[in-house]
Amino acid sequence: MPMSQQIIFTNDIVETLEELHDQLKPSKTVFFTDDNVDEKVLGPLISPALKGGPLEDALVISKDEGEMYKTVGEVCNVWDFFQEEGLTRSSLVINIGGGVVTDMGGFAAACFKRGMRFINVPTTILCAVDAAIGGKTGVNHNGLKNEIGVFREAEAVIVSTSTFYTLPMMERLSGFAEMIKHAMLSSSEDFDEVLDNSVTDEDFDEDVWLPLLKKSIEVKRRIVAADPTESGLRKALNLGHTAGHAFESLAMRRNRLIPHGFAVAWGLVVAVVLSKMRNWLPSNILYRLASYVRTNYDVFHITCDDYPQLLDFMHHDKKNFDTESVRFTLLKGLGRPEIDCQVSDDEICAALDVYRDLFGI
Amino acid sequence: MPMSQQIIFTNDIVETLEELHDQLKPSKTVFFTDDNVDEKVLGPLISPALKGGPLEDALVISKDEGEMYKTVGEVCNVWDFFQEEGLTRSSLVINIGGGVVTDMGGFAAACFKRGMRFINVPTTILCAVDAAIGGKTGVNHNGLKNEIGVFREAEAVIVSTSTFYTLPMMERLSGFAEMIKHAMLSSSEDFDEVLDNSVTDEDFDEDVWLPLLKKSIEVKRRIVAADPTESGLRKALNLGHTAGHAFESLAMRRNRLIPHGFAVAWGLVVAVVLSKMRNWLPSNILYRLASYVRTNYDVFHITCDDYPQLLDFMHHDKKNFDTESVRFTLLKGLGRPEIDCQVSDDEICAALDVYRDLFGI
Repeated sequence: MPMSQQIIFTNDIVETLEELHDQLKPSKTVFFTDDNVDEKVLGPLISPALKGGPLEDALVISKDEGEMYKTVGEVCNVWDFFQEEGLTRSSLVINIGGGVVTDMGGFAAACFKRGMRFINVPTTILCAVDAAIGGKTGVNHNGLKNEIGVFREAEAVIVSTSTFYTLPMMERLSGFAEMIKHAMLSSSEDFDEVLDNSVTDEDFDEDVWLPLLKKSIEVKRRIVAADPTESGLRKALNLGHTAGHAFESLAMRRNRLIPHGFAVAWGLVVAVVLSKMRNWLPSNILYRLASYVRTNYDVFHITCDDYPQLLDFMHHDKKNFDTESVRFTLLKGLGRPEIDCQVSDDEICAALDVYRDLFGI
Repeated sequence: MPMSQQIIFTNDIVETLEELHDQLKPSKTVFFTDDNVDEKVLGPLISPALKGGPLEDALVISKDEGEMYKTVGEVCNVWDFFQEEGLTRSSLVINIGGGVVTDMGGFAAACFKRGMRFINVPTTILCAVDAAIGGKTGVNHNGLKNEIGVFREAEAVIVSTSTFYTLPMMERLSGFAEMIKHAMLSSSEDFDEVLDNSVTDEDFDEDVWLPLLKKSIEVKRRIVAADPTESGLRKALNLGHTAGHAFESLAMRRNRLIPHGFAVAWGLVVAVVLSKMRNWLPSNILYRLASYVRTNYDVFHITCDDYPQLLDFMHHDKKNFDTESVRFTLLKGLGRPEIDCQVSDDEICAALDVYRDLFGI
């Protein structure tokens, strides 16, 4: 899979879409979105502005909002629609929404007639810095995340902060956690720069966001370009996700949903604790990160009674090929990720103790 | 998509599979097949021979036989099985069967965890010279053929005539039609060589089949390598299929199923008639082909009352991007395919008149 993906930073989504349409000359164009984005962004902002232009006749298909509708069954409904509307291999799908929309719409397009082209227009920060970039598409299956999918690059990703004002603070924070992760994978300077910003400031505006977003996306793009199908280096992007996924699964058992980025933020703390336990990172980095996360991301409550369950989730994480021990991505320093670190159950429990200490729980 | 596909010609499928297993070192291996192949080939011939070897613990999943089970719903059942058995991205699927099995098993493998490796072991001639080679995977959707799928190459294709003796004569003939097509795309010499064989001879044995098969597969491989995702040259392989698909669809309307290769054989005659009408081919080639097809493939009965329906099917063929006229692959000579030839409805009707004359109907 060649990395030919264009990433376009713009304040004018409509103009950019029309230019791309002129370049790609699709036989038909379909917007794929969810009800929430349709109501808040596509309906009021994008569709009226397309009137009179080359995309005036674009179709819209909107799915129910949420992760629970990211299934093969729902993709079949999308395929039915594509067939009814006579889409061909030279048609174009524009995915506009968060990660659920770009993952699912990318998969639907990639498999229809063995591959239509698609464009991603992320409307969340999390999607802009993560899901929309890098060619992973897919849906959940039997409750397991992204079990069914393919690697296929969007023709273009359009990144614009112009829709982000619609985001609730929780969504903004969730995306920012992945940006912290990218900064940690990049360099000490990037880490400092990101944590110098308070994501919860109301006046945290475009002029601040855009350069940070660009830098963050560049980190992901560089790593993906080196390893598009995740056979090695790309696992670096899993930093914070091994413990993070376990926290998400535990929350689900408790019938609570926590935003993905929050789980990543807590998981980053666990990964940094483990890195520090190996004397790979100094304590000041741990304290700085933990303090930022505690201030902005609240706390995920666990007791030592939860450890066996958390360990069990980590052993069965889909990125964990080795069922004997758990493999983490850790840091040998800021900007120096180390993939496939085997960590014993005892080490994990010790790290969870430190996590609880740091958060005073 | 790089053309890295190995095609292995062998008389010992088991030994070849064991060697490939040693090279690929999968975490788990699954045979994907259908009930008919399971009963006639996998159960009696392959499975017992694997005892004591590295593939002894390979799992088997078998689907109901037939095109009607080549659906997204059935692929979901396969994915359920893959999940239950704990397959990972480093597992291996061995598709053993005809085109329905290799298309569907390839698609199931290509999308599970964004891509497991797979090997194709065609058990029909049609599959060996066509479906198993070239990276097209997919399933039908709402009655439309191969609507959902991806381009993904098998790690290896194992071609062995050792299972072909189980094929009914109709299956053998059906595969041979694609071999005639490949010969026509290749050269005048190949065309003569193929038609010098009588496929219905009972003593038509391995020593004759194998070199013909190799040559035929090489023609397809060469064309696919030049255009893996069918943006141009690969359409040459569509020779005979525009009229052929229309005959198949008409038969379906009449509640009759005709073997795909038979429809291709009749469709080749129509394509050659059209090429001759443009003075691209001499009459002796048309007569030689028509006589071979009439002798071996029976006749598909049509009257001029069927023309509007046949034209309608051709206009809606999925390879026909242009709804105003029908685009055929024709021949400027043997070995000189010309893709995307616009043919008017009047020309098609005239060609169907000649087809009926040639077959005396």
